[in-house]
This record gives sequence, structure tokens and C-alpha cells, in this order.
Amino acid sequence: MWEVTEEDLEPIAIGAGILGTGGGGNPYLGFLRAREALRKVGRVVVIDPDEVFDDQRLIVSGGMGSPVVSYEKLPQGDEEANAVRAMEQHLGYRFDAIAPFEMGGGNSMAPLVVGAKLDIPVVDGDGMGRAFPELQMTTYLIYGGSAAPAALADERGNRVILSEVTDAKWLEKIARAVTIEMGGHAGLASSPMDGTHCRRTIIPNTLRLAYRIGVAVLDARRAHQDPGEAIISVTGGCRYLRGKVVDLERRTTRGFAKGHLILEGTGDDLERVIRIEFQNENLVILEDGEPRVVVPDLITLVSTDRGEPLTTEVVRYGFRADVLTIPCHELLKTPKALEVVGPRAFGYDLDFTPIV
Amino acid sequence: MWEVTEEDLEPIAIGAGILGTGGGGNPYLGFLRAREALRKVGRVVVIDPDEVFDDQRLIVSGGMGSPVVSYEKLPQGDEEANAVRAMEQHLGYRFDAIAPFEMGGGNSMAPLVVGAKLDIPVVDGDGMGRAFPELQMTTYLIYGGSAAPAALADERGNRVILSEVTDAKWLEKIARAVTIEMGGHAGLASSPMDGTHCRRTIIPNTLRLAYRIGVAVLDARRAHQDPGEAIISVTGGCRYLRGKVVDLERRTTRGFAKGHLILEGTGDDLERVIRIEFQNENLVILEDGEPRVVVPDLITLVSTDRGEPLTTEVVRYGFRADVLTIPCHELLKTPKALEVVGPRAFGYDLDFTPIV
Repeated sequence: MWEVTEEDLEPIAIGAGILGTGGGGNPYLGFLRAREALRKVGRVVVIDPDEVFDDQRLIVSGGMGSPVVSYEKLPQGDEEANAVRAMEQHLGYRFDAIAPFEMGGGNSMAPLVVGAKLDIPVVDGDGMGRAFPELQMTTYLIYGGSAAPAALADERGNRVILSEVTDAKWLEKIARAVTIEMGGHAGLASSPMDGTHCRRTIIPNTLRLAYRIGVAVLDARRAHQDPGEAIISVTGGCRYLRGKVVDLERRTTRGFAKGHLILEGTGDDLERVIRIEFQNENLVILEDGEPRVVVPDLITLVSTDRGEPLTTEVVRYGFRADVLTIPCHELLKTPKALEVVGPRAFGYDLDFTPIV
Repeated sequence: MWEVTEEDLEPIAIGAGILGTGGGGNPYLGFLRAREALRKVGRVVVIDPDEVFDDQRLIVSGGMGSPVVSYEKLPQGDEEANAVRAMEQHLGYRFDAIAPFEMGGGNSMAPLVVGAKLDIPVVDGDGMGRAFPELQMTTYLIYGGSAAPAALADERGNRVILSEVTDAKWLEKIARAVTIEMGGHAGLASSPMDGTHCRRTIIPNTLRLAYRIGVAVLDARRAHQDPGEAIISVTGGCRYLRGKVVDLERRTTRGFAKGHLILEGTGDDLERVIRIEFQNENLVILEDGEPRVVVPDLITLVSTDRGEPLTTEVVRYGFRADVLTIPCHELLKTPKALEVVGPRAFGYDLDFTPIV
């Protein structure tokens, strides 16, 4: 058990922003919301997946929407809790714990806000081990969870329950349309499950990992050391390139931020040019026209000087960045998972070749 | 009590198409669906609003979508029943009777299909006394009914419950987005209410009125008499113009069929030219640049020779038509109702001047 307090939030926000691979919502906004919620209740209890009992009832919590929109439309903090309440009302029982939807930026903080508001623990882990753009892309669903019921809520008081869906892709389609109508951001509660399913399918201890990454970055800053190296030492990743952003195309389509970045190498990487394509999250690194790192392995940008995560909506022309790659969790590398989160699921005619 | 059998469906379809004022879904498709449902169960029981008890539980049933889309995408007949079932599951009780959503084309038949499939009676009446394009435009809601919960279902098995909405306009906004995602047509179950509210707010006996209109048209056809005159004698309306369609613009925007018709008079009406503007339903007749008949009074087109209702998606260039106007029900003429269904609600800077 881990009692997360206000002081833990800054490192979690930094680490989750890095694991968010460009998406998952703005980490700083998520931090502000979580801090406000924790100031009211003092702390939120985070439990290890091993501490979840077989017959406990869990609900997956997170935010849905385009990172670009939620940057403009500040999430109010009640959407996710409202979605969980809507689900409780629909099912007629209370949940024992929250399972985070994804680890990334604001969305890693949202479950902490919900746990604090509803006074129930949050399980240390998530359904992606990173961020992904679509709802069907969680290990909870990939490994047999039910796509319905799911609930969406906004800050005005609107609550929508998808009580039955044909499959997880229909969950994504309908929930996306509702989210857009709600203004581009909605709280999501989905995949109600028992403790057995949670323990079997959750990517464990990613909240603790985010915290450790954040602490390493903050320590490196204080010691005037290289924050990129500090991230690598904690995650087992590597630095693919150090360079600067020389081109950026980003458009918001149907609630997604799609586009690409071009980076030119600097220092040891001089004369190298890479292209990163993203759909909310960074999906592929191309160099010399060849894919070099592909989803579901993590591709993440941090500022060279401070190790600040550069999410899709934050990154700008001229930014100096380290492009880091981090191996994804084994639960994302199975044939079953790659069908849903591998390069082909994003329209790339490529097999997944893991970096490790 | 009235046991509606297969033989009653043709006149109901004709009459409901006429009361649908251009919208409400294709009456012939609605007829086919209702006939199929009734062939399985023999009959559906229609009760008078006076026969509804105070504490009975009613649900409003109908189809949602653009008439143009549902013409192309044949409704399967299970959507509306699925929506009612979704609502029963959400609320945890069964409904005693169905209250029709609108009287118009296919949507007047949908409650009969639901009543037949679920084996519960249908109340003779509806929430519009005609058809309107948006969900908030029912007397059930105008006179105090709750906009939530409401349920939408498609033919694939997707079910969505709007468990709480800020107001009826948010019900319309979110339900419209879900309907578009479901392919442009969805079954709707909304405004669960008790018998007292139903009796107080329903526009009564419109199913019987549709039947009487249809019988009059069929009799006139058989007797080689003027079907337009027959409709007028039953409804208390009048013929505004006899002419032919010389111009037609229709576009589908966000699930609505919007546009206008131009008709040139023939016979006694030679040299007159009128313009009818519609949004799924006909909203206003303009002549010499002046509004002459406006919503919520009924503006309906029938073919001159056969009295066939010419809905928005059926009418074509060159059609010969009688433009009939029928006074709307008193429940639509109050200040409260005109806020929601009067000309200003459709963007016309006009006061409502009733034709009677």
C-alpha cells in the first residue's frame, strides 16, 4: 500500500507524461487537478495488484478526448468521478477500487482524483503501460474483458451509459461521438471487472514506475545532470536521437490529434533526420525512409535540458528534444495484443519488431 | 380499446404520412415493418388515453434519424423494441404501455411494432400531433416530463442510455450524435412517465385520426373522388394550393434533411408560386415573400391524383401535389409550447399566427 500525497504528484506527473508517449492528456493540467483533489482529502491510497482480492469489484477510470481539445478546454475534475457514479447507479453496486485506464499525462492523474473524490483505493498499474488513442486498446479488453457497460460524463451533468455494444470497436466509435458532442473531453468509466481479471490483465506498477522516473528527472535537474540519461537508467530504454524539431504538422480530426514531427540531430547525431508519426501518441520513428521503432514500443520526447515530457499538444517548432525509446510491457507483445495495438492496427503495413 | 390488425395498417400509414408533414420517416417502410410484426402476433392493442391508470408506467417510443438516411438504410424493426428493453433494464421495471413519440410516417408505426413485439398496449395519441425534427419537441417534455433517462439502440445490438442530461436540448444533441454513429437511424425510448403525466400531456387520438384520414383517402380513390377534399373533410384543414413541384433543394446535414420546395399553381391557382421550407418536416409556406402558414400548424403535401403523402425524401421535381394545411392541436399553441416548436425555435424571426 502506498499513500500518495501532494508531494508525490509532481514526480508522477513528469513520469506519466514521459510514459504517455505524446498523449494521455496534458500532464501539468492533470497535476493541477490531482493536487486540488488531494488538498481536500489529504491522500489517496494506491494498492498493489497483488493486494486486490478475487471477488472485489473494480472499474477502469480515465479521461477520453483529444489532447489538443482538453488543453483548450480545461477538464474540471468531476467528469471521471461522475462517470464512475453513473456506472455504479446503472449496475446497482459500489466499486471497491479504481483501475487506471492508461498511464500518460493527465490520464494517469485522473484515477487518483477519482479515488480521492470517491474515497476508494487506486490499483498501481494500468491497461496500456503507456497511452494509446483508442478505447479498445487496453489489456483489460484485449484479454477478455467486456466492452460494455461503459459510462461517459461531462462537467455539466450529462451522463451516458453504453449498456451494450457489439464489440470494443463500437464502444470506441460511439464513445468518441459522445465525447466530441460533450465538447471534446469526457470522463470515462469502463470494463467493470473482478479482482481476478484485474490481476491477470493489468500492466502492473506503472504508477510507481512513473513516480520513479519523475524522481530521477527531478534529481538530475537538481544535480545538473542529464535528465535523459536518468530516464534511461530507470526505464531500461535508450536515447534514439538528440536533436531539434524542424517541422511539425498537427491536425485535429474526429477528436484525434494526428500528424508528424521532423527532428534534425545535433551533437553526435548531426546530419541525422528522423520523422515521428503520431495519432495522439507517437506511433513510429522513420529514418532513411525505414521504420526503426514502432508501436507498441514507447517513443517519447523530453526536453533536452530539463527532461520535461513534450506531449503532442505541447511540442513546438525549434524545441530541443531527446527522443527516447522504452520497451513496452510483455502483455502488449502477444499476437492477441498486437492485433489491437500493433502497427497494423494503426494502418501501417509492418510487423512489430521489438527494440528489446 | 382498439385491436389494430393487419388490415388497419394501410389506412394508418397513409394518414400518418399526411400528419407527418413531410417527416417522421417513410410511411411505406413503416407499414412493411408493422405488417411483418403484426403477422407474427395477430394484433396490437391500442388504448384510449382515458384508459390509462394514474400509476401505470409508460415509455415513449419512436425512431430517431434523418428520413433520407432511413430510406436508404432500411430500419430492421428491432431498434425501437431494443431501446425500450434497454430502458427497462436500466430502470429495473417493466412498462405497462407505449406512448408514441410522433405521428408521422414510419414513426407512427414504430410504437405498434414495439407493442406487438413486447406484448403491451399502445396509447392512442402522441407527443407532437404531427412530426417534428428534434427530441425536445414533444408535449411530454414541454409540459414537465424529464429529459432523462433516454435510451437509443441499433439493429446490431448496441444500446446507449442517456442516464442524466442537463436539459432536453442536450438530450437532442447527444442522442443525435449517437444516432449518426449508429448509421443514421436508431430506436429511441424516452420520457418514462406515469399515467397521470401521460393523460395530461399526450395529444390524444392521433392514431385514430390517422386511420380515419387513411380510410377517407382509400374511399375517395375507390370512388374516383378528390382525395385532397376527403382529407380536408376529416382534418378540418384546407387546400392552400394545387400545383406542381418546379424546384427542390435538399441536403443532409448532421442527420437532418434540410431544404426547400418551390411549387407553381395549376388550375384555379395558376400564376401563384409558393416556397415551402423544411427541416425533415415542412416548416413554413412563403408566398409573395411573406410567411403565410408557419410551424407548428401542419403543412403537408399529397399527390393530387391519389392523396399519397409526399414526404421529404419521396417528393421529386415535377410531382403534382395538393398543399394542405391542418390546424395543430391546442397543446402546441401555448406560449410554453411555442418556445419549443414555434417559428423562432427553427430560426424564423416570426410570431406564430394560427391558421384557425
